[in-house]
Amino acid sequence: MAESIAAGKYIFERVAQLGIRHVFGVPGDFNLFLLDELLKVPQLTWQGTCNELNAAYAADGFARVRDLPGCLVTTYGVGELSAMNGVAGAYAEHTGMIHIVGMTSRPQQNAKIMIHHTFKANQDHLIYTQMGQPINKTQAILLDDATMAEEIDRVIIEAVKTRLPVTIYVPMDSVSVLLDAKRLQVPLDLEIKNSPQVEDKVVARVLEEIEKASNPAILADVLAIRHNAQAETRRLAELTRFPSYSTPLSKGIIHEDSEYYNGLYNGQVSFPETQAAIEASDLVLNIGPLLSDSNTGGFTRNLLDENLVMLGHDHCAVKQERFEGVHFLPVLKRIVQELETKASQYKLPRPQKGPRIEAPLLNDSKSGPITQSYIWQRIGRFTRPGDVVLAEAGTAQYGVPDAVFSKDVSFITQIYWSSIGFTVGACLGALTAAREIEGAQKKRVLLLVGEGSLQMTVQEIGTYIRYGYTPLIFVINNNGYSIERAIHGPNQLYNDVSMLWDHQKMLEFFGAREETGKKSRSFTCKTVEDMEKVLSDQEFIEANHIQLCEVFMDQFDYPWRLSGQLDVARKRAAAAAQAK
Amino acid sequence: MAESIAAGKYIFERVAQLGIRHVFGVPGDFNLFLLDELLKVPQLTWQGTCNELNAAYAADGFARVRDLPGCLVTTYGVGELSAMNGVAGAYAEHTGMIHIVGMTSRPQQNAKIMIHHTFKANQDHLIYTQMGQPINKTQAILLDDATMAEEIDRVIIEAVKTRLPVTIYVPMDSVSVLLDAKRLQVPLDLEIKNSPQVEDKVVARVLEEIEKASNPAILADVLAIRHNAQAETRRLAELTRFPSYSTPLSKGIIHEDSEYYNGLYNGQVSFPETQAAIEASDLVLNIGPLLSDSNTGGFTRNLLDENLVMLGHDHCAVKQERFEGVHFLPVLKRIVQELETKASQYKLPRPQKGPRIEAPLLNDSKSGPITQSYIWQRIGRFTRPGDVVLAEAGTAQYGVPDAVFSKDVSFITQIYWSSIGFTVGACLGALTAAREIEGAQKKRVLLLVGEGSLQMTVQEIGTYIRYGYTPLIFVINNNGYSIERAIHGPNQLYNDVSMLWDHQKMLEFFGAREETGKKSRSFTCKTVEDMEKVLSDQEFIEANHIQLCEVFMDQFDYPWRLSGQLDVARKRAAAAAQAK
Repeated sequence: MAESIAAGKYIFERVAQLGIRHVFGVPGDFNLFLLDELLKVPQLTWQGTCNELNAAYAADGFARVRDLPGCLVTTYGVGELSAMNGVAGAYAEHTGMIHIVGMTSRPQQNAKIMIHHTFKANQDHLIYTQMGQPINKTQAILLDDATMAEEIDRVIIEAVKTRLPVTIYVPMDSVSVLLDAKRLQVPLDLEIKNSPQVEDKVVARVLEEIEKASNPAILADVLAIRHNAQAETRRLAELTRFPSYSTPLSKGIIHEDSEYYNGLYNGQVSFPETQAAIEASDLVLNIGPLLSDSNTGGFTRNLLDENLVMLGHDHCAVKQERFEGVHFLPVLKRIVQELETKASQYKLPRPQKGPRIEAPLLNDSKSGPITQSYIWQRIGRFTRPGDVVLAEAGTAQYGVPDAVFSKDVSFITQIYWSSIGFTVGACLGALTAAREIEGAQKKRVLLLVGEGSLQMTVQEIGTYIRYGYTPLIFVINNNGYSIERAIHGPNQLYNDVSMLWDHQKMLEFFGAREETGKKSRSFTCKTVEDMEKVLSDQEFIEANHIQLCEVFMDQFDYPWRLSGQLDVARKRAAAAAQAK
Repeated sequence: MAESIAAGKYIFERVAQLGIRHVFGVPGDFNLFLLDELLKVPQLTWQGTCNELNAAYAADGFARVRDLPGCLVTTYGVGELSAMNGVAGAYAEHTGMIHIVGMTSRPQQNAKIMIHHTFKANQDHLIYTQMGQPINKTQAILLDDATMAEEIDRVIIEAVKTRLPVTIYVPMDSVSVLLDAKRLQVPLDLEIKNSPQVEDKVVARVLEEIEKASNPAILADVLAIRHNAQAETRRLAELTRFPSYSTPLSKGIIHEDSEYYNGLYNGQVSFPETQAAIEASDLVLNIGPLLSDSNTGGFTRNLLDENLVMLGHDHCAVKQERFEGVHFLPVLKRIVQELETKASQYKLPRPQKGPRIEAPLLNDSKSGPITQSYIWQRIGRFTRPGDVVLAEAGTAQYGVPDAVFSKDVSFITQIYWSSIGFTVGACLGALTAAREIEGAQKKRVLLLVGEGSLQMTVQEIGTYIRYGYTPLIFVINNNGYSIERAIHGPNQLYNDVSMLWDHQKMLEFFGAREETGKKSRSFTCKTVEDMEKVLSDQEFIEANHIQLCEVFMDQFDYPWRLSGQLDVARKRAAAAAQAK
């Protein structure tokens, strides 16, 4: 092994050590030398995207499937600023991200030269690092040879532990600074550690409550997935057989075919039986909560502190007792271990009090127009174990919670940050991650996106084709931004989008054609019969080539959950106005 | 006239008063009420774009053609962050921009609620305004009813005067705050005023130098266009007949068919005769300079202070004498007026010392492959008076300076900020502006873009079609990012892009098809003969429907100006390394 290593290569060696195998991004003159170093790391593959926002979305989607931070490389100014919305989304939804930015050299910075990608004379070249601070957990700016290695290590560790974005800024001349290669032989310490005394206390208190609870439940939320605790969460549910619930953001965390899965809890915007059941629990184990408006039925979640155990990433709480700074991950691991070894003490597995709560079948029509009440549950029945499902902001995102998934489906939606167009980029990341982890059974990736959102980020469809991915793409073609119509101005022209795009030509245009050897198929569905035909087509089901299913729906047909969420928000606003 | 007016409508009335007729952007739930107000202003038309980055690019392109700030509306967080790179580019290149952001209501802000588009619990909702500060000249956050009207006026005035971006943040509940409508009867004071004494001095000194100069020249740079002094600049050249020059960013500012146009000056990266001529001048009137690397031949511009008059936006200098804070616009107007009234005193018009310097014909081949040395000058000969030409970052941007334009061509390139993909969005704005100002003769809009850049922002092609615009789109298909190949890593895979896109299907896919009534034509050019055929096709020349000309070129064929610029930069870097 060489004694020294270029700083640029050091970064990517550390990235590879995490288990990451693909890096997304766009080249630019300030990152080309950096990308040379990436290409020298054999475990890593560069996957170019069409633009930087989509690269950030892809890194985010990758992280959600791979349970590792996503990694992207952009260039100074133009690239990093284009990525900001995608990085901010990763911050909001706790998808770890390592963003590596190639920037001007240190001599250029010191001279403050008015080089391209700066924006005024005598400008501090670090200005974009300042702009990026709020959307990063931390940053490393590799200005000092002496601290580069530890700075790189520090921020990568933070990305993994906090599942938030971090950025490494690499001046062009820092790429080749030689660091001590032996350092790489010491793995990064990625273990999350709590204060032992406090952790002991939390674990003991939770177990105590579990032991005495007569009607316990598990509410598994999204940070349990993000902080890589999905396996423990599923184990907890399996072991205890407590009635278990997901949220809009965490859907899929509990195997939905299991006897103990009782549905998706979103406050007043839940199926009534599901809502009633969890709210009647005398002990809700709430793992990895993210309490945003759209993940709590517009803040209508009604779980009393006296019945609640909160296992959060920044604090835990057992009923009214709060423990600041305790991370749920080690706590959960110890709880599962304890329950496993002393199952009888805790009377595990506990039998369910009644049959599991089934999602009501909203619409069993066999013919006629395709409605919101029909399509999402139907797609739920179409899923098979291991699938990845992405639901775009809009009607898809508010419709899919009605679906019941097969076992072990990964669900990606961005209902908190809610940036439209996200899933088209994220799907590239999901496809990449699925390829990295896929075993004997191919993981299918289903993208559910409205035509307005698709227009935001459509070019990445070309990237799926370029790299040989074969998602099933469902385009909901309903004449504009239906979610906006539901919110305000149903007939206002600003909610229209171009209806001239011919989605049936899309895959061909982007490269899936006979002469390129990239097979594709595209379908148009205007009726339930059309849809049933596609969904029972064996070639479609197998998903061995890229396929598109365009679904025409009414522009004023909204999922009940969207209307419900909006009703809650409007009532709140009216009450606030009244009180004023 | 009503006595009061909603704050939202007030903003758009002020925008309309500037002469702006189209507003770009994307709806989002925090700006829908705001957009309702826009629709109430009859002079304004909403032009939705596919995404916010493209909206910012469009507003920028609009400003460049219209000599007015562009206006865009985005939504809280997701929208405004997506637009940042486009706003920063407008900052760098002084294209005034009024960015209006719909944000959370003041009660929501005060409660710091974890609503969608925020990114963590208890977050200050104003966080994105902080992120936006460096790329805005100033901001107005409409939090206080009492100061809203003056705040709106203040920042709009700043946008016009400084030709930099400003942002108006409009909380949802501020949209309907009632302001005094009478205020609108007082037009905004948009006049740029200098200290009279200092201005008198500058004007006198400049005229004195003009009077005694034996070999004067005009170097008209881009800020003369941005600060709306193109007409005065052209008048000055016409009146004086001083040999006149443009820069890469200002190309087109001087009528290129005129006897006194001597070419484009870019330091050592100029045609030698042009460079020699301007550098031999004993008085260069440099109007609106922007001294970035790519606009000065990599800082090789060689004009001595003792021969230079700098008429800048933030200072003027006459030879070694510097006048801080003097804006060139009033100075230039007075100089032109003085010269007009006392032409004989200044011996105007002065005859040229010799024939004008002609750009050498680089390549007169009539057949065979299409090369960089051929295409740009050929497209120059294709222009006709009034055309708008956009050259994308990359080979187009470095090639077009070789072209000689017809009279009165507007040229758009972003060679300082250099964000790839810019022109595809900017072209939408240029098309919109051209429609606003078009007289008897239709203004053609020519977009010159590489296939890699096109992939960044391609969806806006659909927006051209949606709104019935008919640009002529030249796609340089040369297998990846050739500008990056020229810079570093000619064969590295990161410089590749998908080569599977079928550009011949692009216009159809995005909506130009027989059944939509939007006619289009698409051509493939692999040889000079193909190209000549397209460029002499009457239907193509007339540009009455959208047409695409795909030009295949070699990936390693770079314009000489690109290679020249890179040589300069490499020599500088080598010298710096040597000195170290």
